[in-house]
Amino acid sequence: MKILVAQRNPVVGDIDRNTAKILESMDEARTKGVDLVMFGELMLCGYPPEDLLYHRTFIDSMELHLERIVKASKGIAAIVGLIRRNIEAGEKHLLNSAAVIHDGQLLGFQDKWLLPTYDVFEERRYFEPGTKTGIWEIGGKRIGVIICEDIWQHAGYVGYTRYRRDPVQALVEHKPDVLLNISASPYQFQKPDVRINVCAKAAKTLRCPAIMCCQVGANGQIIFDGYSVYVNKKGELCQLGKGFAEDAMIVDLEAEICPVPFAYDSLLNLLSALELGVKDYFLKLGFRKACLGLSGGIDSALVAYIAAKALGPKNVLGVSMPSCFTTNQSQKDALELAKSLGIEFLEIPIKEPFTTFLHLLEPHFKGKECDSTEENVQARIRGILLMALSNKHGYMVLTAGNKSEVALGYSTLYGDMCGGLGVIGDVTKTRVYDLCRYINERAKKEIIPDTILTKPPSAELRADQIDLDSLPDYGIIDNVLEGYVENYLSIDEIAEKYRIPRELVLGLIRKIHAAEYKRRQGPPILKVSKKSFGVGRRYPIVQKWL
Amino acid sequence: MKILVAQRNPVVGDIDRNTAKILESMDEARTKGVDLVMFGELMLCGYPPEDLLYHRTFIDSMELHLERIVKASKGIAAIVGLIRRNIEAGEKHLLNSAAVIHDGQLLGFQDKWLLPTYDVFEERRYFEPGTKTGIWEIGGKRIGVIICEDIWQHAGYVGYTRYRRDPVQALVEHKPDVLLNISASPYQFQKPDVRINVCAKAAKTLRCPAIMCCQVGANGQIIFDGYSVYVNKKGELCQLGKGFAEDAMIVDLEAEICPVPFAYDSLLNLLSALELGVKDYFLKLGFRKACLGLSGGIDSALVAYIAAKALGPKNVLGVSMPSCFTTNQSQKDALELAKSLGIEFLEIPIKEPFTTFLHLLEPHFKGKECDSTEENVQARIRGILLMALSNKHGYMVLTAGNKSEVALGYSTLYGDMCGGLGVIGDVTKTRVYDLCRYINERAKKEIIPDTILTKPPSAELRADQIDLDSLPDYGIIDNVLEGYVENYLSIDEIAEKYRIPRELVLGLIRKIHAAEYKRRQGPPILKVSKKSFGVGRRYPIVQKWL
Repeated sequence: MKILVAQRNPVVGDIDRNTAKILESMDEARTKGVDLVMFGELMLCGYPPEDLLYHRTFIDSMELHLERIVKASKGIAAIVGLIRRNIEAGEKHLLNSAAVIHDGQLLGFQDKWLLPTYDVFEERRYFEPGTKTGIWEIGGKRIGVIICEDIWQHAGYVGYTRYRRDPVQALVEHKPDVLLNISASPYQFQKPDVRINVCAKAAKTLRCPAIMCCQVGANGQIIFDGYSVYVNKKGELCQLGKGFAEDAMIVDLEAEICPVPFAYDSLLNLLSALELGVKDYFLKLGFRKACLGLSGGIDSALVAYIAAKALGPKNVLGVSMPSCFTTNQSQKDALELAKSLGIEFLEIPIKEPFTTFLHLLEPHFKGKECDSTEENVQARIRGILLMALSNKHGYMVLTAGNKSEVALGYSTLYGDMCGGLGVIGDVTKTRVYDLCRYINERAKKEIIPDTILTKPPSAELRADQIDLDSLPDYGIIDNVLEGYVENYLSIDEIAEKYRIPRELVLGLIRKIHAAEYKRRQGPPILKVSKKSFGVGRRYPIVQKWL
Repeated sequence: MKILVAQRNPVVGDIDRNTAKILESMDEARTKGVDLVMFGELMLCGYPPEDLLYHRTFIDSMELHLERIVKASKGIAAIVGLIRRNIEAGEKHLLNSAAVIHDGQLLGFQDKWLLPTYDVFEERRYFEPGTKTGIWEIGGKRIGVIICEDIWQHAGYVGYTRYRRDPVQALVEHKPDVLLNISASPYQFQKPDVRINVCAKAAKTLRCPAIMCCQVGANGQIIFDGYSVYVNKKGELCQLGKGFAEDAMIVDLEAEICPVPFAYDSLLNLLSALELGVKDYFLKLGFRKACLGLSGGIDSALVAYIAAKALGPKNVLGVSMPSCFTTNQSQKDALELAKSLGIEFLEIPIKEPFTTFLHLLEPHFKGKECDSTEENVQARIRGILLMALSNKHGYMVLTAGNKSEVALGYSTLYGDMCGGLGVIGDVTKTRVYDLCRYINERAKKEIIPDTILTKPPSAELRADQIDLDSLPDYGIIDNVLEGYVENYLSIDEIAEKYRIPRELVLGLIRKIHAAEYKRRQGPPILKVSKKSFGVGRRYPIVQKWL
């Protein structure tokens, strides 16, 4: 049996286009003598559709398109991820399901048993868990079908939840010849090898090969990295789909295949994830051009680099907006960077509007010291300018706040936080440096000017300001982020694990909570870590814990 | 038996303070010869605690404070809503529970069976459903205890979900003498009488009186209106707790009480809800003073009125920021309103910064027509000014966008959308007018100047602009909102029900979806309707449905 693993990039809600992609892959499969073609989870509507699921016509549309797909399946089998109505008893009206189709017939559905409801997943909001499992006999093979989370539980990799049932274990008695898992598994720094482990564990338990077909492409803040997996019955990796691109991997279950090693460059993958995130955000929203403020600092440098890769340098505009506090070096660095990346460049000094605002506000600031208010005014003037260019010329503004800043609220709301997408909002400052160094090392030249990497970080919103004036070392901040935000460690545990004074840990945690109101109004953030501030994390703004 | 229904206003995460409130009510109960005191759902940590629940020390703290409460319960019984660990099997590690305490002893827990996971509720994210029920014998009474949603299912009032189990029905065989329901039931326009119906239905089924103890106060975007309920075994309303205030209603189960009528002024309640929402948002965040832009229009007039009621007029600053497009009438109206409300008033004309920006941008706008860009620049200059006053003097900025505007994105991101709280973001334009008329009628004077109510709505961002230039009549918009956003009707159903041309309906729905990116960065919104844009609604920004 030959299986085409159709690793596709669906658009949420574009059921027509997604159907066209499905039909295309079925044609390709037929041409190539393939017996079965499998797609990712919710291929028909894209993952995650969120509250679109509450619209009856949305579900109706999926039913209609499924009919088209079934009719088009002459001479071939297909596993298609979709949503269907739950017509039996149960809390929720919908099921996250796989349609099993063969030669013009809908054989039936396999529903998802394990419904992740944590982090970015909200499946219990919409779906009733499946209750049945079994074997699909197609082309003389006994096929087991399960959906995404269903395979994770068995390998013990599930977070926040201890499901009562194990869909892999439940298939043991059915003795499948092959296990097919259809997935929409978000990218996360260093996750792909975990997926291989998960497939290996299921393959060993069931003593049959396992194939995981993954979604690829970004939908909003969530990036799907592809890397579909084929492991043999010993759990050895035999084939791996492309990362960050559509792929049509053909698995021949009868062929003797030597196991392949898994090689993975985690920083390169992180860059690819961010590029894909930007690319799909623009493409799927119908935007072509980006603009961003170039401060001469490292964050905007990295964002400009990623945008140039994702959209093409000619579609990226870097805007330098110097104030009286901007150093000559920073202005020079911004220009050098733009040249190096080949992006468009513009300079608009903000001294004049800054003076106007100070003058206008003077009568209302009488007797008050100069403070962060004046800093924020500068950042907000820059926001106005970028948004004006955006409105007039159709750029989407990109923000350059990194995760460490986003965590502590070290940014100006409606100022440098203006923008349609927070490209590196889930990348810590420490990793921003890692990535920039990596970019230069890999290219064997200074793509990002070395001065940007070596000068001390500064917001340059007052004279001689550096970040270290207001913040501890970014290494310390990033340790607290890992401990508190990603792993929910207690203050004492963090203090001990990272050897940071307890009071400093507590102070940083308080800052993290206090910045919740800013983040609530921040741009969407591409999620690349275990726990992002952009999606999948919910804390009250109004609360008094700690 | 005498029961004190402790309708309290907990602060999320402030377990110490909430415990103090619990102990205080227990003392009060003892003083008044009460046998049992009951609190609302999750009284110990406040509802909703969201991801604070993932912190082990948060749960530990609740355990410790429960011990204090148990020790302090000498001679009295108490039902306390809290979270406890699920030490048995089950997907989730926590239970939403009621501790049943009597005379220094923890008798046990009643866990919540029905876990709402829709709209603003995400209980399946954290909790495992309870499985057991029974009777608590206290003071010779057979007491049944259930939690919030547990009582709603039985009356058929639950949305999005059809629970398999019915906790009220499950109690029938146990023959309780009284049913106690502890709730955190959000305010919604015209909801309180529904709560009475729900209690009545349970009382009739169980043939015993039912008491619902409600949370009161606002936590973030969610407002709890109080109105705890006591119905007799015939389901007749006998006592009703205060609306929008803490209360300590004492129910004497043995007393003969005549049923009381339920009188309800829905507009007055809506105003009270919004006032409480603002008041608690400020109080619980430690803010005292608000500022807002006064355009001379009806939305900012209503917000200024609500803020003045909630915070006191002297704590509210109205800022008029006229441009060359602001009419004399609007400037006059803004000033009149400020005088009428007794709030502080300031005028900062924006002509100068507007000219500066136009001049600065001129070289970059060559060959381009004047368009909404220039309108947005004005709105954003106003945003900068308000935020500067906020940063310098400690005001929280209030936004005045109504629900109809928020729906269609008829607002400037980082401009008039600047602010810490969207006071009327869940109130349609139609209802904004209703409320303003009501305010004047009730006061029998022009609190809100009549010219504000009678002139056609306008953003005044270009010459002779009125809303009707860009939008259909607000009556039409608000019908589509009700049909599409609140009730998920299809385009055809909306067109038919409200007699609106199909193309117009579709156009408005597309605008609603297209504005998702703005709302994602909008301020928190006080929820007062069935479906708010601020919380409990999740749509992808990147999607192609419709």
